[in-house]
Amino acid sequence: MEKLKPRTLSGFMELLPQPQQQMERMMEVLRSTYSLYGFTPLDTPIIESSEVLLAKGGGDTEKQIYRFTKGDSDLSLRFDLTVPLAKYVALHYNELAFPFRRYQIGKVYRGERAQRGRFREFYQADIDVIGDGKLDITNEAEIPAIIYQTFTTLGLRRFQIRVNNRKILNGFYAMQGLTERSGDIMRTVDKLDKIGAAKVRVCLVDDCGLTADQADEILKFIAITGSNADVLSALQQYAGKNEIFDAGLGELNTVVKYLSAFGVPEENFAVDLTIARGLDYYTGTVYETTLLDHPEIGSVCSGGRYDNLAEYYTDKQLPGVGISIGLTRLFYVLGEQGMLNGDLPTAPADVLVIPMTEDLAPAIALSTALRGAGIRTQLYTEAKKFKAKMNYADKLGIPYVVFLGDDEIAKDVVTCKDMATGEQTTLSLDGTLQRIREGLAARNAGAVILEK
Amino acid sequence: MEKLKPRTLSGFMELLPQPQQQMERMMEVLRSTYSLYGFTPLDTPIIESSEVLLAKGGGDTEKQIYRFTKGDSDLSLRFDLTVPLAKYVALHYNELAFPFRRYQIGKVYRGERAQRGRFREFYQADIDVIGDGKLDITNEAEIPAIIYQTFTTLGLRRFQIRVNNRKILNGFYAMQGLTERSGDIMRTVDKLDKIGAAKVRVCLVDDCGLTADQADEILKFIAITGSNADVLSALQQYAGKNEIFDAGLGELNTVVKYLSAFGVPEENFAVDLTIARGLDYYTGTVYETTLLDHPEIGSVCSGGRYDNLAEYYTDKQLPGVGISIGLTRLFYVLGEQGMLNGDLPTAPADVLVIPMTEDLAPAIALSTALRGAGIRTQLYTEAKKFKAKMNYADKLGIPYVVFLGDDEIAKDVVTCKDMATGEQTTLSLDGTLQRIREGLAARNAGAVILEK
Repeated sequence: MEKLKPRTLSGFMELLPQPQQQMERMMEVLRSTYSLYGFTPLDTPIIESSEVLLAKGGGDTEKQIYRFTKGDSDLSLRFDLTVPLAKYVALHYNELAFPFRRYQIGKVYRGERAQRGRFREFYQADIDVIGDGKLDITNEAEIPAIIYQTFTTLGLRRFQIRVNNRKILNGFYAMQGLTERSGDIMRTVDKLDKIGAAKVRVCLVDDCGLTADQADEILKFIAITGSNADVLSALQQYAGKNEIFDAGLGELNTVVKYLSAFGVPEENFAVDLTIARGLDYYTGTVYETTLLDHPEIGSVCSGGRYDNLAEYYTDKQLPGVGISIGLTRLFYVLGEQGMLNGDLPTAPADVLVIPMTEDLAPAIALSTALRGAGIRTQLYTEAKKFKAKMNYADKLGIPYVVFLGDDEIAKDVVTCKDMATGEQTTLSLDGTLQRIREGLAARNAGAVILEK
Repeated sequence: MEKLKPRTLSGFMELLPQPQQQMERMMEVLRSTYSLYGFTPLDTPIIESSEVLLAKGGGDTEKQIYRFTKGDSDLSLRFDLTVPLAKYVALHYNELAFPFRRYQIGKVYRGERAQRGRFREFYQADIDVIGDGKLDITNEAEIPAIIYQTFTTLGLRRFQIRVNNRKILNGFYAMQGLTERSGDIMRTVDKLDKIGAAKVRVCLVDDCGLTADQADEILKFIAITGSNADVLSALQQYAGKNEIFDAGLGELNTVVKYLSAFGVPEENFAVDLTIARGLDYYTGTVYETTLLDHPEIGSVCSGGRYDNLAEYYTDKQLPGVGISIGLTRLFYVLGEQGMLNGDLPTAPADVLVIPMTEDLAPAIALSTALRGAGIRTQLYTEAKKFKAKMNYADKLGIPYVVFLGDDEIAKDVVTCKDMATGEQTTLSLDGTLQRIREGLAARNAGAVILEK
């Protein structure tokens, strides 16, 4: 028979078993951390009606979208988890309690030009808090705590949550008489990290039509740096001139004030006036998160406060705050940087049971007992040479191999080999279980991500 | 602004938060049970090249598939998890260790006519063991143990794993000189449960072209019932006439022999000669699982042994055995039958912290401490009346509400109300934690599924 060459589409991540286990660990950390903060899991369809998904319309989104017809239906694959959330909240409004806190970890689709490290199918891991009409500022203050908890649980220490407030920027631009152009200006300023201050200045003058003085004033403003206290005190000098600015400064003060009660160390947090987030819909606090040793990766967790989640579907005012982690890209980059902890077990099983008797019943019963004790157990019964069986355990990285021969059965003991140390013990089942449990606890002690 | 009516496509399950939590619990049971048996998690793209996905081609599959073009690419959404597995194993053959044991829980797509309880997007939960060239019969014997463990962990007791062997059927048909027609016959016999013996007899004669005697012989054969020992002993009478039959009987004897060592009670298992599975590619043991009190649901977990997983992609002989649970449909049916345990917590949080002071820092610090102790905690800071805050906890089913006022802060205690009993305590944080932990353990003690 003619064979078809098997292949996976370019831009689609398909992991081998070992990295897949690392990815699963990362997802488990996200699920459990988000749950600790009272977010409920949600799962929405990957396919939506194009009309619903593209209600906002326009932009790069529409070009990149996977859109097709099936029968009479015009369908699209979701390109983020925010639009489906907006639809969900508008659709189920009467059945939800607000504030509505949900997390969703799911695949989204964008038909970008394929290139290294760019994916067309990728996981986003989002949390959002949606209020009904109003949403208290404390929710914005809590977000850095969630980011901090998430990344430290993943194993990172050297990261910084950079925070700003769009009202401060909008108020500042209003003071300069630049309200009309604030959107363009923020998009330009957002490029500061990438293109530098000099080029930003050129863009502000040439593209945004600012005077040289206005551009300088803006660059002076966004150059305000230092400790959180320094920045807040420098901002205080602009206070009293614009209501929006003052509101934003008040919010930022609240966010900073509660940091320590939320358990976020000062060194993992920075007020950063250059952060604007390119998206127009953010209206309050905005967040970016960078790895201090890998600024080239850009932000690994971003988001902010918005005033109206679902305006295309409902008259209800639904303000919210949310953040998103581009999980597939993050995983890829961590792998590239060698930052995934290779010491954590990635084997499909903790124990490989190798029967040494013709009747398999005792070895099967032993496997059943190990599983009953919560030990992930594989029974190996293929007709192979002993060496091949050991190689199999080795190749998969299974930490323990258990042998059961006539001797062991007669004495009601099992022989257990630690594949890493080579140490072999012959103990009762309980003794063996204890040894295995202690060994597994030690092996599982580390975090998924290792900083060098 | 003109609003667009939000909607979710027909045939796509989108759950409210409470049932979604139940679904998550079911998925968690599947993940942990499959892991106990040494299966590794896999995640493959939802989109594949149409050429790859339809290599086998033909049939209902092609009509139902979601297929579209993007740029120059002819793409399709996967319609099961078996074809992607075949591609995966063929593509990554050199990097895998065999037997390769994987589980995958993922969404698949079939554009069926929409009707109640039928889904176009649904989760399948599959496990497969793939051998390289050969695969020992013990793998087939282990499958009932995995099914048993999965369903009992989910909370079911009254279910039966029905097992047959295709070699027994093929061998039997060969004895009757009906080898050529065995496929048609098996597809007809497979309908026995649905249409009854009389109609099967008519179909065998009219559609399959059998003589009345042949039809009777087949009906007599598949009417063999009783305990496993009874059926095996009745089958023994046909032994020695056909090699294939004898091989199948040997395999079936092995599967039954090891049941008790695998921990499967006799009452949850039955040799059933009417089980054939409609699919042509099964070659050995086949499995179906039925809920004894709900036979109308049909099989909730099916599968079998096949000899050649990836013949469209590779010359390697890759025999395997696998089973699949149609998770979305199962969840839907359990909900319809009122079999989902409503007593298990489905709230997004275990504790709602309500600050009673203007300065939120103490309540935030308490929330941080609760989370640090592993308690899922939501801090409620919206400007609402006290009653509205309690209603919020009530509506979400949050089991504990914690209050922190000046009195509590001064005395270093917290007030905690059990929302189910109304009992309110004022204890140290440690005392409160202990009370909450014990209460949560009791609330979480049950299984996801309840039989009535």
